[in-house]
Amino acid sequence: MTLDPVVLAERLIDCESVTPATGEVFACLEAMLVPLGFAVHRFVAGEPPEGPVENLFAVRKGPAGSRHFAFAGHLDVVPPGEGWSSGPFKAERRGELLYGRGAVDMKGSIASFVAAVADIPAVAGTLSLIITGDEEGPAKYGTVPLIAHMREVGELPDLCLVGEPTSVHRLGDMAKIGRRGSVNIWLSVKGSQGHVAYPHLADNPIPRLIAMLAELDALVLDEGSDWFQASNLEITDLEVGNRATNVIPAEAKARLSIRFNDLHTGQGLVERVTEIAERHGGTAQAVISGESFVTLPGAFSDLVSAAVEAETGLKPELSTTGGTSDARFLRAVCPVIEFGLCNATMHKTDEAVAMDDLVVLARIYRRIARAALAVSAS
Amino acid sequence: MTLDPVVLAERLIDCESVTPATGEVFACLEAMLVPLGFAVHRFVAGEPPEGPVENLFAVRKGPAGSRHFAFAGHLDVVPPGEGWSSGPFKAERRGELLYGRGAVDMKGSIASFVAAVADIPAVAGTLSLIITGDEEGPAKYGTVPLIAHMREVGELPDLCLVGEPTSVHRLGDMAKIGRRGSVNIWLSVKGSQGHVAYPHLADNPIPRLIAMLAELDALVLDEGSDWFQASNLEITDLEVGNRATNVIPAEAKARLSIRFNDLHTGQGLVERVTEIAERHGGTAQAVISGESFVTLPGAFSDLVSAAVEAETGLKPELSTTGGTSDARFLRAVCPVIEFGLCNATMHKTDEAVAMDDLVVLARIYRRIARAALAVSAS
Repeated sequence: MTLDPVVLAERLIDCESVTPATGEVFACLEAMLVPLGFAVHRFVAGEPPEGPVENLFAVRKGPAGSRHFAFAGHLDVVPPGEGWSSGPFKAERRGELLYGRGAVDMKGSIASFVAAVADIPAVAGTLSLIITGDEEGPAKYGTVPLIAHMREVGELPDLCLVGEPTSVHRLGDMAKIGRRGSVNIWLSVKGSQGHVAYPHLADNPIPRLIAMLAELDALVLDEGSDWFQASNLEITDLEVGNRATNVIPAEAKARLSIRFNDLHTGQGLVERVTEIAERHGGTAQAVISGESFVTLPGAFSDLVSAAVEAETGLKPELSTTGGTSDARFLRAVCPVIEFGLCNATMHKTDEAVAMDDLVVLARIYRRIARAALAVSAS
Repeated sequence: MTLDPVVLAERLIDCESVTPATGEVFACLEAMLVPLGFAVHRFVAGEPPEGPVENLFAVRKGPAGSRHFAFAGHLDVVPPGEGWSSGPFKAERRGELLYGRGAVDMKGSIASFVAAVADIPAVAGTLSLIITGDEEGPAKYGTVPLIAHMREVGELPDLCLVGEPTSVHRLGDMAKIGRRGSVNIWLSVKGSQGHVAYPHLADNPIPRLIAMLAELDALVLDEGSDWFQASNLEITDLEVGNRATNVIPAEAKARLSIRFNDLHTGQGLVERVTEIAERHGGTAQAVISGESFVTLPGAFSDLVSAAVEAETGLKPELSTTGGTSDARFLRAVCPVIEFGLCNATMHKTDEAVAMDDLVVLARIYRRIARAALAVSAS
């Protein structure tokens, strides 16, 4: 059966699905997959404000003993924002582009995967789709319970491709074989409130916070590693909230975001920051969003590169740059690589995908899936 | 005529007059002064939120060529806050104390001045009261237009006593012969917003603000001067307001408060801070609330000290500590000294004055006024 990924992408874009997503957009995807022989399991998890989140696991089993290749992604999208030339939730073709929220991140990618698997006979092996309604939000009720479900039913894949938009300038120029880890740290220094005219009766916490942040900002965490750029610490917020010009405040706060490579663990960085915070009379509270990971170049990356090169002529750079994705959860299940559309317009006004890219991406995904089912990956 | 300052204070406290004040409390004071032979001029100035503010100038002229002594103060009070043992706007005597908002800051002081002048014959010289309804707020429509009115009608005093609560442990232990200057400075550093995963595409303004503040916090402005303690700089606020953990913000802000002595001018400090701010890529916006000033010890302080000592046995310390007061405006008109009640409970819950102190203060004020009208002050 041959399906047009552009038409499939239009249908998905037309279903409004700002994160966290449930309902119509999942029914739309289910309606595409059932005729292709997939058994579809949908479930809703979580409470407001992080939920409810809908998740979908669709599997089409191959012959007994088949390898299992999975495609992972998300149907939720970031809010459209203002200033669109056409409705963000009404797909519109203009020239060579298809416009709509999610065109590249990542309803277009899911459409291409559906078109790809439509062309693969069931005898080739087991194929699945791991699709969440919360990748753009806190991701608490998304891929994590999806993995739990897959464990429960004994359907864990051997290899997984996440369809995030990894290409930069041209479709095929970059794939991601890993991601840096991420940790956010909330810093606080307490003092004692008072009048600025009587500073000896107060204890201003701001100078201690300033000294702490100066030391943290001067840290050089590393110079990069074999597969990663250097780790980076950013101070992302300062907060005192004192509106009275003649008052010394009682507390001063700041927030850090550290993106770190495989030379660190989240916990190790938290301990290092906590030591500095406490030495300056403050405290640190951390949330580790994910550890760094890498799927070292080998059979899996070779087959992805070969598929991309065959369809585009480009040999994708194997990168670990950028933000986090649900690959941070899936990498605990099996080797994971990410490859997808050009990311120039993702999260922006007038998000759009080249319609030709959707067709080419469907061909690349078909090659990757067939090769992944055929070969053993290291 | 002999008036009881405790009764007068009760009447003033019973008129609610949270800053900015108008109306009833001024009518109450006018009703006390008219029978004593004062000509009372009241006027309202300013628009919300800084106004409307009522002001009162009352004068009783002495013989032609008389010296003119003025008493300055305010009838507005700070908000009462929570937790009072009795109504903050219903004066209550309990034991030796009189409770109510404004008991010491400074309706009690105004009551004592009225009682003092009631005992001074008109032939002694010209006496006036310069009373505003906004000393506790921005003070934009208070003593400043009062001085303009006095200039207009040609009634500028030769000496002025501000009745702020300057005593610390016992009535009479401290008078203020000057005040430090005060300037607030708003600092800002602009950068370029971006995603924390791509710091090379953004420009985080926070490290530049941190470096700027570290340099400002390390400044030693001076070691004090003959009549002043050391100048002091406090960082009073930090603000970024970035709630997204994965975003590098576009702007970072801070606020300083500098209380400075006679070794500096407000403008000189603003220029010094601006140079540092700009060197770190930021900007500085300043509001100078007042310059430092001092009424050097001499005939005026001598007569104040003598009056205090005669009634209390204490020789008041001549200080320049603490916050600003309306003396910063009046010092442009004539020599100014501040003397008044104990300040332990000012601005606090259950503000209270010792009733005996009101009686003693009325005697001190009578001595000061008579001496000021009699002698020539340097």
